[in-house]
Amino acid sequence: MKNPNSNSADVNKIKAVIYGQDYQIKGRASVDQLRMVAMLVDHKMKEIGEANPRLDLNRVAVLAAVNVADEYLKLRQEYEDLLRILEQAQQLGGGEQE
Amino acid sequence: MKNPNSNSADVNKIKAVIYGQDYQIKGRASVDQLRMVAMLVDHKMKEIGEANPRLDLNRVAVLAAVNVADEYLKLRQEYEDLLRILEQAQQLGGGEQE
Repeated sequence: MKNPNSNSADVNKIKAVIYGQDYQIKGRASVDQLRMVAMLVDHKMKEIGEANPRLDLNRVAVLAAVNVADEYLKLRQEYEDLLRILEQAQQLGGGEQE
Repeated sequence: MKNPNSNSADVNKIKAVIYGQDYQIKGRASVDQLRMVAMLVDHKMKEIGEANPRLDLNRVAVLAAVNVADEYLKLRQEYEDLLRILEQAQQLGGGEQE
């Protein structure tokens, strides 16, 4: 899929501050999407760091990754459920493809 | 939603090794789901760490979180698209709810 925000090389780069550290984030996603990704991770790390002030930086980061991965897997389950519902709806709705 | 793998307090705990460090992961998800989450993060960190051997541990972890967050946001977009398709299919399929 082409993205209207992609540059010619199809890779975008942004600079972002995540939990007080500078990062360069690269990816095929749009600049807006990359910014959202950085904000999401920064937000998660702050949440975890505030709840556990004694935690090492790297453990905060790993737990942020765990947190996002958990939401990712839940969403993937819901996505698959929805796909199944849609397939059933299509089978019921119309058998006129042939 | 109740999960058949949940314990009485509705919070499960697992011990997991992520990128060589011990973690206790807690969550409302099933034990299997928590294990998958830990494996996903461990896998991402190894992938990033192998590709960038000089990277600090905490930067490997942050970039793993960024990576998973990127996939999460893409999936959320796809999920919303699918939801829209399903809503349209339902509107076309049956107007007999009233």
